[in-house]
Amino acid sequence: MSRYTPPLDDWRFVIEHVIDAPASWRDLPAFADLDGETAAEVLAQAGRFAADVLAPLNGPGDRQGCRWSADGGGTVRTPDGYPAAWQAFVDGGWPALACDPEVGGQGLPQLLNAAMFEMLIGANHAWTMYPGLLHGAYEAIKATATPELRARYLPKVVSGEWLATMNLTEPQAGSDLGLIRSRAEPVEPPPEGQQLANGAAVRITGHKIFISGGDQDMSANIVHLVLARLPGAPAGTRGLSLFLVPKWLPDEHGGHGRRNAAHCDGIEHKMGIHGSATSQMRFEQAEGWLLGQPGAGLSAMFLMMNSARLHVAMQGLAHLESATQKALAYARERVQLRAPTRPDEAAASTGADPIAWHPAMRRILLGLQAQTEGARVLVGWIGVLLDESEQHPDADRRQRAGDLVALLTPVAKAFLTDLGHRGADEALGVLGGYGYVHEYGIEQIVRDSRIAMIYEGTNEIQAIDLVMRKWLDTPRRMDALIEVLRAEVASAADRPDLAVEAAALQRQIDALVDAGTHLQAARAQGVDAVLAVADDALAAVGWTLLCWAWLRSASRADCHADAAVAQRKRELARFGCTWLMDGQSARWSRLQQWQRPLPWLRC
Amino acid sequence: MSRYTPPLDDWRFVIEHVIDAPASWRDLPAFADLDGETAAEVLAQAGRFAADVLAPLNGPGDRQGCRWSADGGGTVRTPDGYPAAWQAFVDGGWPALACDPEVGGQGLPQLLNAAMFEMLIGANHAWTMYPGLLHGAYEAIKATATPELRARYLPKVVSGEWLATMNLTEPQAGSDLGLIRSRAEPVEPPPEGQQLANGAAVRITGHKIFISGGDQDMSANIVHLVLARLPGAPAGTRGLSLFLVPKWLPDEHGGHGRRNAAHCDGIEHKMGIHGSATSQMRFEQAEGWLLGQPGAGLSAMFLMMNSARLHVAMQGLAHLESATQKALAYARERVQLRAPTRPDEAAASTGADPIAWHPAMRRILLGLQAQTEGARVLVGWIGVLLDESEQHPDADRRQRAGDLVALLTPVAKAFLTDLGHRGADEALGVLGGYGYVHEYGIEQIVRDSRIAMIYEGTNEIQAIDLVMRKWLDTPRRMDALIEVLRAEVASAADRPDLAVEAAALQRQIDALVDAGTHLQAARAQGVDAVLAVADDALAAVGWTLLCWAWLRSASRADCHADAAVAQRKRELARFGCTWLMDGQSARWSRLQQWQRPLPWLRC
Repeated sequence: MSRYTPPLDDWRFVIEHVIDAPASWRDLPAFADLDGETAAEVLAQAGRFAADVLAPLNGPGDRQGCRWSADGGGTVRTPDGYPAAWQAFVDGGWPALACDPEVGGQGLPQLLNAAMFEMLIGANHAWTMYPGLLHGAYEAIKATATPELRARYLPKVVSGEWLATMNLTEPQAGSDLGLIRSRAEPVEPPPEGQQLANGAAVRITGHKIFISGGDQDMSANIVHLVLARLPGAPAGTRGLSLFLVPKWLPDEHGGHGRRNAAHCDGIEHKMGIHGSATSQMRFEQAEGWLLGQPGAGLSAMFLMMNSARLHVAMQGLAHLESATQKALAYARERVQLRAPTRPDEAAASTGADPIAWHPAMRRILLGLQAQTEGARVLVGWIGVLLDESEQHPDADRRQRAGDLVALLTPVAKAFLTDLGHRGADEALGVLGGYGYVHEYGIEQIVRDSRIAMIYEGTNEIQAIDLVMRKWLDTPRRMDALIEVLRAEVASAADRPDLAVEAAALQRQIDALVDAGTHLQAARAQGVDAVLAVADDALAAVGWTLLCWAWLRSASRADCHADAAVAQRKRELARFGCTWLMDGQSARWSRLQQWQRPLPWLRC
Repeated sequence: MSRYTPPLDDWRFVIEHVIDAPASWRDLPAFADLDGETAAEVLAQAGRFAADVLAPLNGPGDRQGCRWSADGGGTVRTPDGYPAAWQAFVDGGWPALACDPEVGGQGLPQLLNAAMFEMLIGANHAWTMYPGLLHGAYEAIKATATPELRARYLPKVVSGEWLATMNLTEPQAGSDLGLIRSRAEPVEPPPEGQQLANGAAVRITGHKIFISGGDQDMSANIVHLVLARLPGAPAGTRGLSLFLVPKWLPDEHGGHGRRNAAHCDGIEHKMGIHGSATSQMRFEQAEGWLLGQPGAGLSAMFLMMNSARLHVAMQGLAHLESATQKALAYARERVQLRAPTRPDEAAASTGADPIAWHPAMRRILLGLQAQTEGARVLVGWIGVLLDESEQHPDADRRQRAGDLVALLTPVAKAFLTDLGHRGADEALGVLGGYGYVHEYGIEQIVRDSRIAMIYEGTNEIQAIDLVMRKWLDTPRRMDALIEVLRAEVASAADRPDLAVEAAALQRQIDALVDAGTHLQAARAQGVDAVLAVADDALAAVGWTLLCWAWLRSASRADCHADAAVAQRKRELARFGCTWLMDGQSARWSRLQQWQRPLPWLRC
């Protein structure tokens, strides 16, 4: 019932004050002319698009869903209004926002792209699935394709005329991509002893499932990026190569050519994101081209995957934001029972009070607000780091920023999607019985948000990635994060008003350092014990980052022009660093108890 | 994809060994002839009905849903197969299971009724909504109706020929029943200064929403129990009276008479339980009769409500059980990636391993199993107490059992439905992408289970009931529970094999006693602080009860004839008392910090 309101004021506060992105932009030649004012204007326009065009399609798209037909090699009709909205998005130049101007992009920071995507997803998760892989596909093609393929495909992807997909999963190969069976036959096999050249033509055969946007009626063509095996490739992930397979084979002028044998055999009936066509794909000698080197498919795909994981992290934030909006709107209007005390004693003479005044609801709502604002600081920071990792003139700074992005990516993906789904579920509870019916839209957020914990690597896979590869294998990455956290505590040393928040963060830092020691000891005994507590480790790091975000937000609260907003930010930081953080100690203590056995399943 | 398997072996173990119900039955004249063997046979038959008749209707009923039409005063068609399944249930005599033989009941214990309902719900939650209020309506009519109304309605309700509804909620009155506006006009107003007699005829006018089974095509008639206000009744809950309003006014022979003006104006479109008709009811001068005394409506309704809350607690257990079954079945079959170690080194030569061997999945699955088995012990115990509270020849024993039931009811309702929903959500994650599609049925459990946290008093309302009324207002109830818990620890004193579990429970007992002191101190300062931590208090008590259940289950494990099952019970108890309990300390510490302020919501 409540409208989606783009969180423009909070984004501006985060960008200009909490993470001070303009200071970073001054160091990056590509963005040296950008200022906070301009950035805010871009986001205001994106926010209008989200609220005015996408949000009205969200509920109807959920109820109508996608419709599949066997015609034309398998075709999907997206919900009414989706194609027109996509065309408007393309006409506005939005797909190109953070792409290189050399290939038609607008050359704006990834940070702004991330902020824009939070608002698109918050207004309509299912619709935003279609461009969700666009930036990642752009990165993968840009980094791996031959000049000829780049020239043919990249401008169309950048403009959004053509959308892209990521074809990894097969029925037997989900988390385990090493089990992929799809095959690629070179049209002209390379001479004995030589490997196939980048850009070589192949025929692809195989089945892929859970392909988002595998077919749709929004873009004129679809660019499938497909993992498959060349003849004689080794088993496992080392035998995977990446291929570009268009739905329509472009003619010489780049227009609509022949239909390729990339068929959509059906779509899934899912818990949520009904407007997103989750497709079963069948490639039958489909024409494609090698992207990059044979056997380098997984690393090429990870260019796309890392971008996709950060995109999914934005989904977690977006679900938190839109669920919080709905819960707050309802809790302020709905009156039930008398509250034990009231913020305004003038109200004491009336009967029932707004449920927002009841302690149990206040606590849920404060928790939702604090998590939302903290999460936004975290993803804003990752956005800045991403831009620095690509654009900073100093190689050491690029490296350090890249290290932090690598460490923070699995945390943001898993932790924020956990918060997004659980937060939406809590928000549903605020609406009581009304939360359970379609009309208020909150149950849709619960259903939509669940998938974000699964796709682009399940949250359990993210935890393994964090602990094994990003933390234990490369301790310099966690050292870089600890340095940032310590600097934040140090900078609060002369601020008695931040003593509670700084002390909370210091406790987390101590626990984090201690946890590293325990995890190293555990790994020395075998990885079982490490993997059994990896989910705790990821969540503990996630809460530590929120604690950092709250301290930082409180420390900059005075910069907000509205004193009431500034006071709320201080209160949410205090609430987060006390009420929310006190639930986290058990996670750290589980890491200390890694020697505790985990039984085998019986019966 | 996996079939529902009734947990007959576990129920038998719980009934005969963990809670030793046969020993209790020997003290209760009504059940003196009952033994464990007979009880197991009854449950085996009920389990077959659940698995063979109800489970196959569960997925199809979710997809088809209920269909409403304006014809005939508003009528609902339930999903295909629902009416025939109800007729089979009635023909089997199941509705009468725990009703008094004097009115046609089978006179079996409430414990067996609860166990039966776990299986019905586990197989098909939506279908089981229709008889879900039957026992409560039986209790309310039996306790309050005049002999004439009892004779006319009770046998039909006991047999299940007629189903019953509970009409409380109105658009403006959800948690706050004091805001109910529905009116009852006496057909013959009582003489000045006298109150309306029990059984007096009235005309009811008003709107009710969220009425489960408000209309349906399963039973020949529907008996609505309606809360409304007589003329001149005071505001608030003290002005509410309870009325019986049939859909069809029985003729002189108890058959199908005239249609009453109790209209169904539509049904809700919900997140889940699509097969359950959640109805909007409109009473327009509908004919009804007073049940009990004027102004005593709420206490009469609470006879029904307490039964309904325990029924909802069974939903929590049922969702845990069926979700755990699906997750286990999938995790044993699905192979992905190599596990770091294997239970069976002979398997080491193959490629990918069952995901059930991966530490992160093992931990989730062990958690689900431990919670399921612990929850079953808890509800089994409540079932025994319920029977003792009604049937024990010793008044003190009845009182003590009643005290414990009153204390445990809000905990079981809220805590087990929380576990049920969160457990189903975790189980979905085990299935990864397959968990998100309809086909495997797990996402339906997530959707269905969410409502159990809301209806029959939201879980936040349960927490207030527990802390304010059942704990602080009447400390003897919590004292009775603490006595039970201490006795369990004491009886484990000479069992070194139970030392870990006993120590874990002792820590909870100490924390529980301490919490009582803190909550009393908090209340002395005003109830705000108490209400802000009421949810923590309820969950902490809930986990304490599971800890007790695990200790008790482990202490009786040797009684199980199958050594592997006995060993699993010991391992699950150990896992529960260590891995699961270590996350609960934060809840207790929040109760100690009741002086910590909870900010008001701003902006």
